[in-house]
Amino acid sequence: MGTETIEVTGHIVDSLLLAKILDAILDAGCDYEIAEVRIGKTTLDPSSARIAVTGDDDALGPLLDELQVHGANRTAQDDARLVAVDRDGVLPAGFYSTTNLASEVRVDGEWLPVERPEMDCALVVADGRAYTAPMHRVVVGDRVVVGSEGVRVHAPHHARDTQMFEFMASEVSSEKPKALLVARVADRLRAARERGGRILVVAGPAVVHTGGAPDLARMVSAGWVDLLSAGNGFATHDIESNVLGTSLGVSVAEGTPTEGGHANHLRVINEVRRHGSIAAAVEAGFVTGGVMHACVRANVPFVLGGSIRDDGPLPDVISDTVAATDELRARLPGVSVALMLASTLHAIATGNCLPAGVETFCVDINQAVVTKLADRGSHQALGIVTDVGPFVRQLADHLLGPA
Amino acid sequence: MGTETIEVTGHIVDSLLLAKILDAILDAGCDYEIAEVRIGKTTLDPSSARIAVTGDDDALGPLLDELQVHGANRTAQDDARLVAVDRDGVLPAGFYSTTNLASEVRVDGEWLPVERPEMDCALVVADGRAYTAPMHRVVVGDRVVVGSEGVRVHAPHHARDTQMFEFMASEVSSEKPKALLVARVADRLRAARERGGRILVVAGPAVVHTGGAPDLARMVSAGWVDLLSAGNGFATHDIESNVLGTSLGVSVAEGTPTEGGHANHLRVINEVRRHGSIAAAVEAGFVTGGVMHACVRANVPFVLGGSIRDDGPLPDVISDTVAATDELRARLPGVSVALMLASTLHAIATGNCLPAGVETFCVDINQAVVTKLADRGSHQALGIVTDVGPFVRQLADHLLGPA
Amino acid sequence: MGTETIEVTGHIVDSLLLAKILDAILDAGCDYEIAEVRIGKTTLDPSSARIAVTGDDDALGPLLDELQVHGANRTAQDDARLVAVDRDGVLPAGFYSTTNLASEVRVDGEWLPVERPEMDCALVVADGRAYTAPMHRVVVGDRVVVGSEGVRVHAPHHARDTQMFEFMASEVSSEKPKALLVARVADRLRAARERGGRILVVAGPAVVHTGGAPDLARMVSAGWVDLLSAGNGFATHDIESNVLGTSLGVSVAEGTPTEGGHANHLRVINEVRRHGSIAAAVEAGFVTGGVMHACVRANVPFVLGGSIRDDGPLPDVISDTVAATDELRARLPGVSVALMLASTLHAIATGNCLPAGVETFCVDINQAVVTKLADRGSHQALGIVTDVGPFVRQLADHLLGPA
Amino acid sequence: MGTETIEVTGHIVDSLLLAKILDAILDAGCDYEIAEVRIGKTTLDPSSARIAVTGDDDALGPLLDELQVHGANRTAQDDARLVAVDRDGVLPAGFYSTTNLASEVRVDGEWLPVERPEMDCALVVADGRAYTAPMHRVVVGDRVVVGSEGVRVHAPHHARDTQMFEFMASEVSSEKPKALLVARVADRLRAARERGGRILVVAGPAVVHTGGAPDLARMVSAGWVDLLSAGNGFATHDIESNVLGTSLGVSVAEGTPTEGGHANHLRVINEVRRHGSIAAAVEAGFVTGGVMHACVRANVPFVLGGSIRDDGPLPDVISDTVAATDELRARLPGVSVALMLASTLHAIATGNCLPAGVETFCVDINQAVVTKLADRGSHQALGIVTDVGPFVRQLADHLLGPA
Repeated sequence: MGTETIEVTGHIVDSLLLAKILDAILDAGCDYEIAEVRIGKTTLDPSSARIAVTGDDDALGPLLDELQVHGANRTAQDDARLVAVDRDGVLPAGFYSTTNLASEVRVDGEWLPVERPEMDCALVVADGRAYTAPMHRVVVGDRVVVGSEGVRVHAPHHARDTQMFEFMASEVSSEKPKALLVARVADRLRAARERGGRILVVAGPAVVHTGGAPDLARMVSAGWVDLLSAGNGFATHDIESNVLGTSLGVSVAEGTPTEGGHANHLRVINEVRRHGSIAAAVEAGFVTGGVMHACVRANVPFVLGGSIRDDGPLPDVISDTVAATDELRARLPGVSVALMLASTLHAIATGNCLPAGVETFCVDINQAVVTKLADRGSHQALGIVTDVGPFVRQLADHLLGPA
Repeated sequence: MGTETIEVTGHIVDSLLLAKILDAILDAGCDYEIAEVRIGKTTLDPSSARIAVTGDDDALGPLLDELQVHGANRTAQDDARLVAVDRDGVLPAGFYSTTNLASEVRVDGEWLPVERPEMDCALVVADGRAYTAPMHRVVVGDRVVVGSEGVRVHAPHHARDTQMFEFMASEVSSEKPKALLVARVADRLRAARERGGRILVVAGPAVVHTGGAPDLARMVSAGWVDLLSAGNGFATHDIESNVLGTSLGVSVAEGTPTEGGHANHLRVINEVRRHGSIAAAVEAGFVTGGVMHACVRANVPFVLGGSIRDDGPLPDVISDTVAATDELRARLPGVSVALMLASTLHAIATGNCLPAGVETFCVDINQAVVTKLADRGSHQALGIVTDVGPFVRQLADHLLGPA
Repeated sequence: MGTETIEVTGHIVDSLLLAKILDAILDAGCDYEIAEVRIGKTTLDPSSARIAVTGDDDALGPLLDELQVHGANRTAQDDARLVAVDRDGVLPAGFYSTTNLASEVRVDGEWLPVERPEMDCALVVADGRAYTAPMHRVVVGDRVVVGSEGVRVHAPHHARDTQMFEFMASEVSSEKPKALLVARVADRLRAARERGGRILVVAGPAVVHTGGAPDLARMVSAGWVDLLSAGNGFATHDIESNVLGTSLGVSVAEGTPTEGGHANHLRVINEVRRHGSIAAAVEAGFVTGGVMHACVRANVPFVLGGSIRDDGPLPDVISDTVAATDELRARLPGVSVALMLASTLHAIATGNCLPAGVETFCVDINQAVVTKLADRGSHQALGIVTDVGPFVRQLADHLLGPA
Repeated sequence: MGTETIEVTGHIVDSLLLAKILDAILDAGCDYEIAEVRIGKTTLDPSSARIAVTGDDDALGPLLDELQVHGANRTAQDDARLVAVDRDGVLPAGFYSTTNLASEVRVDGEWLPVERPEMDCALVVADGRAYTAPMHRVVVGDRVVVGSEGVRVHAPHHARDTQMFEFMASEVSSEKPKALLVARVADRLRAARERGGRILVVAGPAVVHTGGAPDLARMVSAGWVDLLSAGNGFATHDIESNVLGTSLGVSVAEGTPTEGGHANHLRVINEVRRHGSIAAAVEAGFVTGGVMHACVRANVPFVLGGSIRDDGPLPDVISDTVAATDELRARLPGVSVALMLASTLHAIATGNCLPAGVETFCVDINQAVVTKLADRGSHQALGIVTDVGPFVRQLADHLLGPA
């Protein structure tokens, strides 16, 4: 049996944080005594708590690590323990696994801020700096934090100021006034813009199938998208719908299957491969519209991550998934709003690379998908169960006026 | 072992009818020999087939009954056997159970057309007329058809002429160009109007929750709805959103829960009960807008069927479900298009009362619901997986111009 | 601007109650000052808080009503205001609308406990007793509580002792170890039994379609079900599967459609109508197995509530929905566990009649349905996204050993 | 305007093939005249049809290509036109795009069978052989078929003999008797075994989360799985559940989150990386059970395809998606049954590599996913909407007896 004291500061009551911490302690079979609790008398005052946690030694260690994920840190902290990597791409046993919250590491008595917060990474300390590193990136000699001693995690900031996040507090549900919801997402994009934040869009093929591509292209052209993350399917169907007027062989204008259309996406991929890149195909006049065209014209960077059995793929697709993720990571800094549009695979992948605090809107018609996305990673994710085509149209209309 | 010859006429190949019939024969463990088949040489020519079916006597009878459901009738037909009902609300054993296809009954050597085709009913013959009757409506002395002898069912007309129905032939899916789909539904409503058909709307509460009520009200006021079928929930939330600006306590304008709003729907129901009817509440100026208001003002009839544990209910709700269904039946003749909007219970109930040939559009965000609805009853049902609020808005815009 | 002081007692931190209350205050545009907060030092100690709430008068009143729904009551309380009903089935304006939590009403300076807690009802005081009454049941002269003065609501008891309710705390999801989940539901049923609680089952037709009826029948026969709530569909398909071996015409043993089977459910209903009741059909040997048979044999009461366009219906179906709900209400006292099996309509209806504190398990394969059910009414509802047939089989095996 | 005559042979009526062909002709705005149709008089006789198709030249060409996808070939056929690839990984314009049906190519007057049928590939002819090649695999000088002249596609064999495939003909639905369905899948696996077919399993992480991994491992050990296709997530959670008793940090035995468990999957991946491979980790005794362990022990090959932002990944994961697909292709020959278990990404990818005729069972709890999978690629896909954990348990019990 041992006892450790933890403390947590922030909006710990109205963010439900204190309750979650006490819950976790009891779930672990441990017990608590509240040493001190200060609850802000008004909305503006932060609250704080010091809690003595008692339990079996083998339960207590993992519990304290878990609590740290919520921003509850041990009061007594030594320097972090650093262990050198002895094999490329393999971490020392007991490595500290990161959250996506702002964190600090204590080295030589000093607290270093962690650069590029990302979940499920290692913490590397070098040259007086601390930064996250995915497992495959560490090399022999890198000094990596082991255990949770000397790591401090900041409790997530509660989004009390944004009405938005009260909006669907109760549940992820399709039964919400949608026109209103679109207006609010538009507001958040405008707010992000004003404070200099970058806007990330992750898009799946259904954006094209449901007729949303022209509207997303309008948003790209008008500067409302700073980074696009997608796969071979989205880019292919977007180009196919521009070049041949079909999406997976189905006429976008008529909604009916086109004869011979089952191979349309292959023909489009093949021609882009012949040109060497999407940009070259745009330059050559082969692609004259759509989202990818707009990205090329407006110099909006895109990361197309490969998936198993992609047709082709398009020459711009990064077929090595580890390299694709690293490319995505390099592009993400500065993103403050993420719009996940009818994408599961790329939405989860991209979301897992983002730091906490990035406002994330997950739009999909399938409630199970939205729930899954909104539960992931970001502390600011909002699920919107709706049809993506009409959603994108209305969003573009809000931001840009009717097409 | 026995053999019977059946024949079927119509667009039996391109409606997949012949294939289904042969399938059913083999599924029953029987065998067939095709005596004659004429396949129309061109699109315009009908096709026909005569097929000798062989099988065990106890398999053959039920099989022939089943084939009749598809419009394949025995070549040799005697008069129908009529048996008198000997107890109110109870049918004679072996009663003929109706399909919703156009049918005829042979009485005294003459073929009488069946009035008011509806599935799962009995066939009553009286005064030289034949008509469907639900089980609970038959009374002692009614002469009811027993067995399938002397009943002829017409193969369903294949909707080859309406491009619409090719549209989603492949599958019920959310991945369709939605703007286009809305345009086509609007076309079908216009076509129905032009040929004098009546338009039925079945609406669930999500129409109100997702912000679609004002648009549906516009459609009612402008004469695009001839009959509304709904429940206590839809009518209550529609009135609540007009009177208090909330839907189930959630502000329709703000999207946020209203304090004390959890009882709003009860207060609204209570006041309408005080007025005595929705029409009286409209006359008194208590209800000044919304779908129910539009129905009262435009003299559009509505049938509100009760459900177990309805709050209140509203005075117009027919709480006896058998009476509610009979009222609905009485209102349906002349309907040629049905729009099912985010309703499961009332959509299935209403759809089961409709004759085949009524074009039915089932709109819901949940694919499982749409599949279930589209598989039911009508031979002309089309499932549309989308968010009902934006759908109704766009549909109203198509028919009436922007609000 | 006004200020009122409220207080709440119980496990207000670990049940997230305090956070929800502060959230609601801010959502209403009001502000708070925490006058006093005592957080239990250990798991066993209750916590309490006194909070001064300040806001506009027209926001404050509704807010305080809303907070009472969570168990936060005004400190200063007078007697409740009672107003006599002046028209049958219509409540006085401003009537108090009940929660399903344990409550008390102050009459003549004394706190009377509210009998039969049920949400969305009125509170009637008569002969020194207070009880809930649905709107349609009040008659001229009944004295009904108006406003929230003099009403005290007890904060919900937090289910900290039942490991079960931690189980899916994070989300309603299909991705849970199911064998384990079944074992825990079985444990809860056993625990309810031991403390003398009654077990309610609400069942939909999919229980029969997926092959779960024989297992549910075993549970009924062995005394694991004390009350069954269902509709015409469930009872019909259960009897059909026993009498004809089909469910909606599909062979339960073979899984294939039966020829002529489309009318099987009608034939079964008709014969039960001829017998006059399900019990009579059982006595006569027409029904020899299945869930309804087991209920008759084991004297387990059932309430079959009618729905619009029920086929038949079976003679035991209460086709008047208001009467059906009242019958259900009369049967519910003593129920402490509710098992909702693949039912939406009857599950919501029945759940809305239950007091808080009834442990409720909502089983359905559709995540959207489960989320909707689990969000409703009861404070103890747990959603389980799984296939109901295998679930019921495994549950019966747990309770009774393999069939 | 032009006219071409096509012919099709096989079970063209009971497989609905003739109807689909006539439908496609009309959809294309063309017209047909049936020159000759022979419908097999009994079940055993094949049918055939010769049809003259008339239409605009620009509609006719694509239509004939489309019809060929269904197995309807032009009567007059010349040699295929072969064009040499002039750039690695890029096909000649107008390349023939393959179906997954058995096909032949006419070269020098002789019909060569197409080896390794796979959809969406090119057809390469070399050394008197014809085979499919995905776009990225063609190199300069490869002679590729251009246009559809000289290609003959065999109509799919209709699965009339397998009762199984009638089973859910009507719709993909969760409302089916599941015990029965499991029994039939078991029968199909046994039948495949008996005729020497190989069994492929594609598995997603939910197999582990829902408790199905031990049962799938039993099936692997007992020889019921010949090839496993999965991703980093499935393999990681399978090993995590064996090594640490958790799946994504949730205890498999208790169903509750484990403290510190959020990093469990990373620790497991890290240790396997240290060992160098899953097989090495098994040899070293680090992994002692589960599906991957069973594969190593039973020498069952597995292909783990990488996805964007995989954690780690495990050393066996092929992170290049193009290479992963090629590895999968190399492993597939001989597979005659495919079981897709709660996988979307890998199931679609794997399914798209399979020839027609491989019986495919797609099991998922989400109806939209099942519909999407069952509509893809294979002509023999059956969707089963159920909970994968209980499904796998029951399947293993059927094949092997209770665990």
